[in-house]
Amino acid sequence: MKSERRDFIKKAGVIASSAAILGAINCDNSSKKIKINRGSGKMKLTYYKYDLKMKHVFTIAKNSRTITPDMQVQIDYDGFTGYGEAAMPPYYPETPETAIKFYKKLDLAQFTDPFQIEKILNYVDSVETGNHFAKASIDIALHDLVGKLMDQPWYKIWGYDREKAPYTSFTIGIDKPEIVQQKTLEAAPYKVLKIKLGAGNDKEMIENVRKIAPEKQLYVDVNGGWKDKKKALDMAHWLQNQNVVFVEQPMPKNQIDDIAWLSENSPIPIVADESIHRIPDVIAARGVYTGINIKLMKSTGMREAHKMVNLARSFDMKILIGCMVASSCSISAASQLSPAIDWADLDGNLLISNDLHEGVLVKNGKLIIPERPGIGVKKL
Amino acid sequence: MKSERRDFIKKAGVIASSAAILGAINCDNSSKKIKINRGSGKMKLTYYKYDLKMKHVFTIAKNSRTITPDMQVQIDYDGFTGYGEAAMPPYYPETPETAIKFYKKLDLAQFTDPFQIEKILNYVDSVETGNHFAKASIDIALHDLVGKLMDQPWYKIWGYDREKAPYTSFTIGIDKPEIVQQKTLEAAPYKVLKIKLGAGNDKEMIENVRKIAPEKQLYVDVNGGWKDKKKALDMAHWLQNQNVVFVEQPMPKNQIDDIAWLSENSPIPIVADESIHRIPDVIAARGVYTGINIKLMKSTGMREAHKMVNLARSFDMKILIGCMVASSCSISAASQLSPAIDWADLDGNLLISNDLHEGVLVKNGKLIIPERPGIGVKKL
Repeated sequence: MKSERRDFIKKAGVIASSAAILGAINCDNSSKKIKINRGSGKMKLTYYKYDLKMKHVFTIAKNSRTITPDMQVQIDYDGFTGYGEAAMPPYYPETPETAIKFYKKLDLAQFTDPFQIEKILNYVDSVETGNHFAKASIDIALHDLVGKLMDQPWYKIWGYDREKAPYTSFTIGIDKPEIVQQKTLEAAPYKVLKIKLGAGNDKEMIENVRKIAPEKQLYVDVNGGWKDKKKALDMAHWLQNQNVVFVEQPMPKNQIDDIAWLSENSPIPIVADESIHRIPDVIAARGVYTGINIKLMKSTGMREAHKMVNLARSFDMKILIGCMVASSCSISAASQLSPAIDWADLDGNLLISNDLHEGVLVKNGKLIIPERPGIGVKKL
Repeated sequence: MKSERRDFIKKAGVIASSAAILGAINCDNSSKKIKINRGSGKMKLTYYKYDLKMKHVFTIAKNSRTITPDMQVQIDYDGFTGYGEAAMPPYYPETPETAIKFYKKLDLAQFTDPFQIEKILNYVDSVETGNHFAKASIDIALHDLVGKLMDQPWYKIWGYDREKAPYTSFTIGIDKPEIVQQKTLEAAPYKVLKIKLGAGNDKEMIENVRKIAPEKQLYVDVNGGWKDKKKALDMAHWLQNQNVVFVEQPMPKNQIDDIAWLSENSPIPIVADESIHRIPDVIAARGVYTGINIKLMKSTGMREAHKMVNLARSFDMKILIGCMVASSCSISAASQLSPAIDWADLDGNLLISNDLHEGVLVKNGKLIIPERPGIGVKKL
């Protein structure tokens, strides 16, 4: 534990010297030096802003960027440290500033037993509406801490088989033919590619991927880009012939009747993404979509995500687990759930050049969940 | 572990001498002596029939009895022992004989890692349809084992607060006025009574209880005894004025529309019992009942029961946890879930005189979940 502690100070120092620290190190005792509360029986929250540097300029429909803002979080208790993260791409309403405002409202020191996860997270959820990403960072740090107190990784605590972790897809964005082909070439190590469609050049996108990777399994994400249900169904049939496994968010989330009709008639599963945040969204998706995409940042973390997995399974719905651009912290947390789901799109940590953690690995395209306790990360 | 082992042999010896053992001690190696597989990395199932002796003759609508047939189960692995139980009241289709037939089909020795609960229980579930009680006994023993391997009780592993365990009700059966009054007097230590109704003397039953316990909170269980929805609604109003908290299974489970109408209009919750076994029954109960009664024997054990708890919570349904007449083994297993639910009816172990385990206790009517690991039992 002491070496972890030193690593944190060292890391915090590096970040401070590059002027990336925004908030105070400790919301409750910002004027005091951090010390380990070994045996104190109180939980202590610390956090700092950290800019994730993109390996390549990242382009989505709305903009391009070279960094992804991020909050790194830790909870110390009795000599143990749990790590968490809120990854905050700019196209979501939450920012490091809204997260810090949220953390400052939290009083985790009132809890003397981190095992009371349900009670603690109900409190965290009650402090403020929204703030799903910030809530997720606390949830992840708490799970990491409790897993370490039990000396077990969460996939084991949840009773899952590590070997059943799926392949992860690697995402190919909408771009010019030569760039799409180049990216498909670079994605050679991945068994599955997720292709972004919906910009009007759908068949061309797939055909460019197929020039480089004629046999590879593909997932398709339309981000609500189709408007006409009959054309969407025609595309679903065409995509099935292209060895596409499922279509994510084919139409805008408010076209509920059209999506339900498409799900009923499509030869491949139709997966909800923009429609899905928390538990009530899974209930609403039943009978509309064939499957759901669960992301820890949107679900408020691992506990609610796990409940959503069980809920979707009870409804016989398919499950994709997705992510934001993020460090290996939240990606490793998500990987703990991966043996319980159908498809994984956990490539967020592969896109950054300044990861803070060693955690889940990808070998021959397959997720390798770490055997370390908690969420399985080790500070780099 | 060795002393546990000796206890088991001693207990088995006592039972053998009273001719209660029915099946072989070990389905796979019945000719060999039992030995602890410390470090062997294989799970070993043993089981024996055990008659639970009733403290008092037990009378329900259909019959009277002095014993409740029961199967006691254990899984040994690497020097650790997990205990399980199938309690088998005679008004259910499963018997010790059907359970033994089921156990003989199981090959648990194929599994080298008890932590893979999902995989193991999916296998157990796939071996045969039905056999919910027998499946529950395996599930409970596996949870006890894995909890011991983690050195934690399941309420903690699941993240619940031990202090939130509810009061348990104590059941008063349909009987003559003087017996009902006598039983209500004997139930003085319990804060809540569950009154069986549906035999035509409903108001008289409540009035006899009220003569002895004028203020006590009451639950009511009709076991499908009412047929007319309007009379049922009148009774629900009358019962509300009698400080009754909820009505369980007011009408036969096939009167779905009538029950849905009653739930919609009743001033107190309407709880499903006969309708609820496993996950699909919870989905079917949504919009029909206000709440559900979960019993480990019907749900196939702790894992599915926990999923049902999360499912019912997602539907904003109330949850009662119930039981059969049973030893403290399965009652203690059920108590692990009790901080997550609204109401408990876990009095099954209080009705027998030859308990085999020390486990969950009742103090001033409240369930005291043991702090021991696993399901929290210690062999007596």
